[in-house]
Amino acid sequence: MAAIAAANDGDAVAYGDDDITRTAIAQLCDLSGAQSAHLVFTGTAANILGLSLMLRPYEAVICAESSHLNVDECGAAERVLGSKLLPVQTPDGKLTPGLIASRLTGRGDEHRVQPHVIQIAQVTELGTCYSLDELRELRVFGQEHGLLIYIDGARIANAAAYLDCSLADIAAHADVLSFGGTKNGALGVEAVLVMTDRLADGAQYHRKQQMQLASKMRFLGAQAAALLADGLWLTSASHANTMAARLASALASLPGVRLAYPVQSNAVFTEVHEQTAQRWQNDFNIHIWSENGDGNCVLRWMTAFDTSAADVDQLAKAVEATMVSRET
Amino acid sequence: MAAIAAANDGDAVAYGDDDITRTAIAQLCDLSGAQSAHLVFTGTAANILGLSLMLRPYEAVICAESSHLNVDECGAAERVLGSKLLPVQTPDGKLTPGLIASRLTGRGDEHRVQPHVIQIAQVTELGTCYSLDELRELRVFGQEHGLLIYIDGARIANAAAYLDCSLADIAAHADVLSFGGTKNGALGVEAVLVMTDRLADGAQYHRKQQMQLASKMRFLGAQAAALLADGLWLTSASHANTMAARLASALASLPGVRLAYPVQSNAVFTEVHEQTAQRWQNDFNIHIWSENGDGNCVLRWMTAFDTSAADVDQLAKAVEATMVSRET
Amino acid sequence: MAAIAAANDGDAVAYGDDDITRTAIAQLCDLSGAQSAHLVFTGTAANILGLSLMLRPYEAVICAESSHLNVDECGAAERVLGSKLLPVQTPDGKLTPGLIASRLTGRGDEHRVQPHVIQIAQVTELGTCYSLDELRELRVFGQEHGLLIYIDGARIANAAAYLDCSLADIAAHADVLSFGGTKNGALGVEAVLVMTDRLADGAQYHRKQQMQLASKMRFLGAQAAALLADGLWLTSASHANTMAARLASALASLPGVRLAYPVQSNAVFTEVHEQTAQRWQNDFNIHIWSENGDGNCVLRWMTAFDTSAADVDQLAKAVEATMVSRET
Amino acid sequence: MAAIAAANDGDAVAYGDDDITRTAIAQLCDLSGAQSAHLVFTGTAANILGLSLMLRPYEAVICAESSHLNVDECGAAERVLGSKLLPVQTPDGKLTPGLIASRLTGRGDEHRVQPHVIQIAQVTELGTCYSLDELRELRVFGQEHGLLIYIDGARIANAAAYLDCSLADIAAHADVLSFGGTKNGALGVEAVLVMTDRLADGAQYHRKQQMQLASKMRFLGAQAAALLADGLWLTSASHANTMAARLASALASLPGVRLAYPVQSNAVFTEVHEQTAQRWQNDFNIHIWSENGDGNCVLRWMTAFDTSAADVDQLAKAVEATMVSRET
Repeated sequence: MAAIAAANDGDAVAYGDDDITRTAIAQLCDLSGAQSAHLVFTGTAANILGLSLMLRPYEAVICAESSHLNVDECGAAERVLGSKLLPVQTPDGKLTPGLIASRLTGRGDEHRVQPHVIQIAQVTELGTCYSLDELRELRVFGQEHGLLIYIDGARIANAAAYLDCSLADIAAHADVLSFGGTKNGALGVEAVLVMTDRLADGAQYHRKQQMQLASKMRFLGAQAAALLADGLWLTSASHANTMAARLASALASLPGVRLAYPVQSNAVFTEVHEQTAQRWQNDFNIHIWSENGDGNCVLRWMTAFDTSAADVDQLAKAVEATMVSRET
Repeated sequence: MAAIAAANDGDAVAYGDDDITRTAIAQLCDLSGAQSAHLVFTGTAANILGLSLMLRPYEAVICAESSHLNVDECGAAERVLGSKLLPVQTPDGKLTPGLIASRLTGRGDEHRVQPHVIQIAQVTELGTCYSLDELRELRVFGQEHGLLIYIDGARIANAAAYLDCSLADIAAHADVLSFGGTKNGALGVEAVLVMTDRLADGAQYHRKQQMQLASKMRFLGAQAAALLADGLWLTSASHANTMAARLASALASLPGVRLAYPVQSNAVFTEVHEQTAQRWQNDFNIHIWSENGDGNCVLRWMTAFDTSAADVDQLAKAVEATMVSRET
Repeated sequence: MAAIAAANDGDAVAYGDDDITRTAIAQLCDLSGAQSAHLVFTGTAANILGLSLMLRPYEAVICAESSHLNVDECGAAERVLGSKLLPVQTPDGKLTPGLIASRLTGRGDEHRVQPHVIQIAQVTELGTCYSLDELRELRVFGQEHGLLIYIDGARIANAAAYLDCSLADIAAHADVLSFGGTKNGALGVEAVLVMTDRLADGAQYHRKQQMQLASKMRFLGAQAAALLADGLWLTSASHANTMAARLASALASLPGVRLAYPVQSNAVFTEVHEQTAQRWQNDFNIHIWSENGDGNCVLRWMTAFDTSAADVDQLAKAVEATMVSRET
Repeated sequence: MAAIAAANDGDAVAYGDDDITRTAIAQLCDLSGAQSAHLVFTGTAANILGLSLMLRPYEAVICAESSHLNVDECGAAERVLGSKLLPVQTPDGKLTPGLIASRLTGRGDEHRVQPHVIQIAQVTELGTCYSLDELRELRVFGQEHGLLIYIDGARIANAAAYLDCSLADIAAHADVLSFGGTKNGALGVEAVLVMTDRLADGAQYHRKQQMQLASKMRFLGAQAAALLADGLWLTSASHANTMAARLASALASLPGVRLAYPVQSNAVFTEVHEQTAQRWQNDFNIHIWSENGDGNCVLRWMTAFDTSAADVDQLAKAVEATMVSRET
């Protein structure tokens, strides 16, 4: 929170000088190995701007069925890019070479869109992380099949914290990726990082056309700079991950509660009976993620940079209480 | 074939007078009960024009995963309409209320596109037909859930022939539908039929903007008129269906051959071992529709208005010969 | 500046409660008479969101050739809306019924886009204001010809200050308008105000699809609230206008300097010889707006909420000095 | 007319073999020097497909204000391409380096679309032709300024006839151009000719996505082949030009009639008093092209491949009679 306040102070200064933005951009490029970086307002905007650098109108994007891009961006890819997404069902939100291969059957057929980009999220919408080996495997597969890699990094900090690696370690396997600030404590800033130089051509026009050029850019720059200073982005994410693990551990010990996916970031997905799910939804304002159709529901619990251990313990205790009270 | 020649002669005359188009439009409206009809060049164009009358940019289309719209139109819906398709896996190419309901979870959520149209094909891409009861059920479901119905009728003549019903019997369950000429013997003409009057507003501008306004419209009109004269559209389709049934019967009797889907139109899908599939593909220039991953393949055989019983029998005999020769 | 700092403090609080945004929206609706208000990040985004509520794909927008929409939004209208702009040359950035009428010749012709919206800016890109009578005249003309009115209000505060009227007085002549915060001291927030209720339908989906939904909306809300508190939006704009008038008066008294347009807001356009223009561009970092082709150039000078009289006087003196030194 | 009938016969045969299309494509490439040729249904479609090969989303097209692309394609460029047109007023429908230069002021400014294509029509919408020298001059200007050249050749045959040159002589100055069949006697076929090889990449996918892939392509091929056989395209156009010249000569000799533009193709534009214009519009079903606002109107008279000298003389006589009768 102090860092955010600092960013806000930074803005006041920034009005007279754009060094803040330039510095933030340079830091982002240094940390990731990117050729260029472009600030935008939202995660959806970062995905759309990033993909617009990689696609011709008849080229398509292979992505997970459960991805934010496919589900939660209100059709921005279709409307703004005019591009088709080719969603693939996955067990855990993660694409594999085998799953991607199932979408490559129509290449060269003029009736079909032509897959050109593999879009993955790190971390995924289901809270899972690709290992660096899995990323490398996707990258190699992409190169063999003429497919570029885009990484939705709205929560890439949580992935770096989980994998205990640098931003560059992840970015090395992408052609373009986003770096999320908003879900990691910023007021609202995301960056598009272009690893493959020729792809950056014209990015500034795409950004303006996509209504993402801030006239007072310094304010975005200041937020990014604050996140990057002293590794705040990583310590914040690391903290959130730790809190998620603590919560997962507490919840998983309750009777009738199963972790739906491995906990590899700041999200915990629990599977419980639908009656329990509804009670929790009411009591704790927790989002029911999906209904499995077998009488069970999956609930998503998120932690953040400012979640404390006490918060987690108190929540876990309150949750446990609902189960005890129910049994009595 | 004689009818097509007549249509061509008609064109010559048509250059001086547009009565031919007006008559064809009136006949289409009479036969279907449509409020208006709009001629275009291709089946893809008919689907796009029809859907453009029904959708706002954030509204989406629920369709079968296997549909022509989703698979074989090179992303025209996404590029020209900017609309998202919500594909649903189906066992036989047909949507049901239950399958559609699975796509209605995000209504009212501003992060999600809002389903507004149920798109079905009659006959489907897998050669199957909806019964009139099934169409009625979809229509009622649509009305209950605020969803319009679009029917891709590229082969609607084959459906009418199979169901032994009128065009109006099918059209009554749609808000907008297409009527295909090209796959039923025409050189190239499709019609968009608008059943719900308010939806037709502006159709002429959409058609021009979508590059489907023929300056010499009479030629399209003449083709449509020729198809409609003396019920040619229905007798041609009926003949093609009969030939498909004859072919299906012959193929299904061969050892190791299974019909993949019920034969309800002019398409026959056979499932055979992949070695057989490849031999047939080579020998008979038959399209391998899909590989099942279990060592079997599905092949699609199409009949047409000009397929003769002798053609079918000769083909069936040749196919059988390949199997005998293989055994020897 | 203090108000902006207050807004930033407000944000900190806002993270736990969205009352700030709700209050800001309610205030915007109160002040303008709007049915609903929608916050976005940039002025371009406000224009595009506003227009997307008013247009079908074949409908077009009549606007001034010099408008921000036409010139400075990098084709967002064409790409995101897919809509055609019909620009009209104007002497002073202002449309008139007569100028608009020149664009209405192709109505009903299916080869032509159909004009549906009159887009004006208040104040215009050339710093001029429509009088309330002129706005009323456009509104009546629009109603007579089936044309909606959109007002780009990126600097509407300056117009209200110049006309000494309320926001509602201007808004009453629009179907949809924007209310600009960024050019009036905010860090980055604009509002789309919908006066005609039926047009607001679906605005939240358009906003998300257009990548303008802030996950931390409170921060936008706080900026808007700060601007509206105690009429800051109006006093800031009024001050900027006064400073522009002071600057205009000083510049216009210099030899060889002519005011290119009436000074009715916070912009001053001076016409000078191109040699003078280039010297001023270098010395004062002033943007050369246009070259007239007759050896003269137009320069644009902008004042802001934080421009002081001393700033203006010092600038005017420095400018005068360049002319004296040149003569010597 | 006989040739068109031959094309129709040809179609019948064509169903069994696509040699006709292949041959037509090869002939088109031979005649023009193109690297590839792509058949589509309409002139609008040819323009859109051609431009889609040349543009990124933020790149714009400089064209004449009066061009078909800008005026008569119902916003297809904006909707299907998402591209902005930068129209330029011209005295006679023809762009010049000077006029184009006026549209190049915002290059490198991220707020502006970036001009990338010069779009001209040969012949123009006003019936005028660029000389080969003028084309060369545009080409050189384009190369100097990084601008590609697209030629709308809906009536390029009339230009070749007027200039007494080959198709290749004109095409040599373009990167992409269209070759019109429909206005030169075909039922409905246009070709996109790609002169610069790298631009053809992906054209087949664009064509399908733009709803221009004819499943029975042979029919389009047959029309193109018929036009090209024995130079029919050129003799038809030459005849139409001759008839236009004959008509122009007759009309220009009438009192109060002025030719609005030089007659360089099959179009004659006459300027007359608006009362005369209205009478002629009624009597001869002639389209009033524009009202000049000074009490005069411009009328457009078109001749075609099948206009006879007797037709022209009879028309001219009838027109003259209306003037005599009026005086009496």
